[in-house]
Amino acid sequence: MELTQLTQPVAGFTREVSQGLRVAVVGATGAVGGEFLSLFESRRLPVQSLRLLASERSVGKTMVFRDEAHTVELLSEAAFEGIDIAFFSAGATRSREFVPAALAAGARVIDNSSAFRMRADVPLVVPEVNPDALTESDRLLAVANCTAIILCVGIAGLRTLGRFSRLIVSTYQSASGGGAQMMHHLEEATRAYLDPTHPTPAPIPGLPEYAFNLFSHNTPILENGYNDEENKVIAETRKILGMDDLPISATCVRVPVLRAHSESVTLEFDGPAPSVEDVRAALDSAAGVTVVDDRALNLFPTPRLASHQNDVLVGRIRQDLSNPHAVQLFLCGDQLLKGAALNAVQIAELALEKGFITS
Amino acid sequence: MELTQLTQPVAGFTREVSQGLRVAVVGATGAVGGEFLSLFESRRLPVQSLRLLASERSVGKTMVFRDEAHTVELLSEAAFEGIDIAFFSAGATRSREFVPAALAAGARVIDNSSAFRMRADVPLVVPEVNPDALTESDRLLAVANCTAIILCVGIAGLRTLGRFSRLIVSTYQSASGGGAQMMHHLEEATRAYLDPTHPTPAPIPGLPEYAFNLFSHNTPILENGYNDEENKVIAETRKILGMDDLPISATCVRVPVLRAHSESVTLEFDGPAPSVEDVRAALDSAAGVTVVDDRALNLFPTPRLASHQNDVLVGRIRQDLSNPHAVQLFLCGDQLLKGAALNAVQIAELALEKGFITS
Repeated sequence: MELTQLTQPVAGFTREVSQGLRVAVVGATGAVGGEFLSLFESRRLPVQSLRLLASERSVGKTMVFRDEAHTVELLSEAAFEGIDIAFFSAGATRSREFVPAALAAGARVIDNSSAFRMRADVPLVVPEVNPDALTESDRLLAVANCTAIILCVGIAGLRTLGRFSRLIVSTYQSASGGGAQMMHHLEEATRAYLDPTHPTPAPIPGLPEYAFNLFSHNTPILENGYNDEENKVIAETRKILGMDDLPISATCVRVPVLRAHSESVTLEFDGPAPSVEDVRAALDSAAGVTVVDDRALNLFPTPRLASHQNDVLVGRIRQDLSNPHAVQLFLCGDQLLKGAALNAVQIAELALEKGFITS
Repeated sequence: MELTQLTQPVAGFTREVSQGLRVAVVGATGAVGGEFLSLFESRRLPVQSLRLLASERSVGKTMVFRDEAHTVELLSEAAFEGIDIAFFSAGATRSREFVPAALAAGARVIDNSSAFRMRADVPLVVPEVNPDALTESDRLLAVANCTAIILCVGIAGLRTLGRFSRLIVSTYQSASGGGAQMMHHLEEATRAYLDPTHPTPAPIPGLPEYAFNLFSHNTPILENGYNDEENKVIAETRKILGMDDLPISATCVRVPVLRAHSESVTLEFDGPAPSVEDVRAALDSAAGVTVVDDRALNLFPTPRLASHQNDVLVGRIRQDLSNPHAVQLFLCGDQLLKGAALNAVQIAELALEKGFITS
């Protein structure tokens, strides 16, 4: 509900931040980076100036923001001078290396990587789900794993219907989760499959054949038998929901889809499951959710429908036939938007609305 | 275990059926039909003569079997004269119309459609799982839904480790489940997506965009909120396992993969779950299963690995972190082979081995 308001212009708000914010984007040329620029243009975050930062090989490229060409500069410790908010989206290694410098320079940092997410002193904010986790003293904020964000948005509205007791999720994750490089690879591998005269792209290390194929998420398997992505989904979902002991299992699978993640969810409650009608009503009024659930038309969420949408699409709402305490759902959310750039921008908007950031 | 033997030549067997079988294939020109011909060539079913049957638009086409061109004939009630075994794979409507004529003509029928699967007097045989369901008096045999077959083969070997108490499956189903037409549509839609000059294929009624997309299985939603495919998987899995009351929930999803189905499975036991080591050992000795589960190499089943393979590939073997009574698995199986034509041929082989069919 708060987010619906957040996406609207707020009276008085623009006066308060009339100078605007000096913003930096780290990883500007990546798949998520490009989404930041679009969001800064379309939403109400008052961006006064924009500094685009990236690694050596992208320095000198130009990107258009508000009809003006901006040149990509080198990511360095000195690059954060005079920055109010730095959005990091260049992977955990870069975040670990450069976030301290950004903080030391006085910037607030909103970090899309996994580097700091599970630190007790770093809130993991999904504004529709746990807006109160953001406090005035927070200067480093983490954006959760894309799959965890989409999952939490999809189910958070059901917390009013009963206490969650177990969560089982199987995912259908798109190439965009691996960045622009993986999206390009999927397209090129598919072209080569369909046309033997098309050059086969260089393999991505550790990635199985991707054309018309799917595979268990290509992150290392940890000792508990779950891969790194699955462990992130489990730990971060617990942290976002504030339910440290919620039993969760996840199976993370990469599918040949370009830019939205899907999730098949079984959600168990402490008591008998709420009715389908109550679940639908709760989702209809949940922030960040659009219900797509027309049984007669067989119209349910798909990644193509969810692409370029801010909301998480939720459908296949039904009682779990195998357990009277459970309901089942199917979710789709844009991995680059709600799973990354949009959630980061929303955190900044929430901080502004709360008065924690002024320019 | 029986099936391993079944795939080997059996001494004495060929004498017993030295005349060979007169076989008909209904739906010969479909995706499954083509697989029958390959299987008749590569396996030990003693095919003496082959009659290819199809609807009007395919009559006159030729298909090569044992280096000889066979002409497709019109499917009609009279076409089953002198046939020992008729393999039907032309959809439930055709089966309902022509199976009675085939039986009346004295043929045994092995039917790939859903027309008769749930009839109490029709056994639903997956030879690795319930070979005893096949009895001498059976003249009409049904091949189960492809997803149910792959699921049952993948978990049947674990029955020795404890009693199943609940099964939750989310599927990743390939285009081949919709036949050659849907496979072709996926390829053409993908070509058109990648190259705007390529003509967009005519939409398949009821099918969402398929290029780089996935969607809830395109069968009608029944009153319980599950679609027809999911209800089949649930009912047929119970029938194959002989566990009429087993709680099962299924979420069936079509993915942009050409010819093998994948399934994310949570399997709960009455008591504490068996260890990963015991599960792996049981699967290693299970008929029709190849374990693909190398955590260090991140090597697990994929549809491309499973394509053109007889076995169901099983991996991601792990304890369910959300329930000490459950294990989790990820399965892939060739939909056209084990999910259809191979299982049908194996039923015939089993009937021969048991002496229920002689030629």
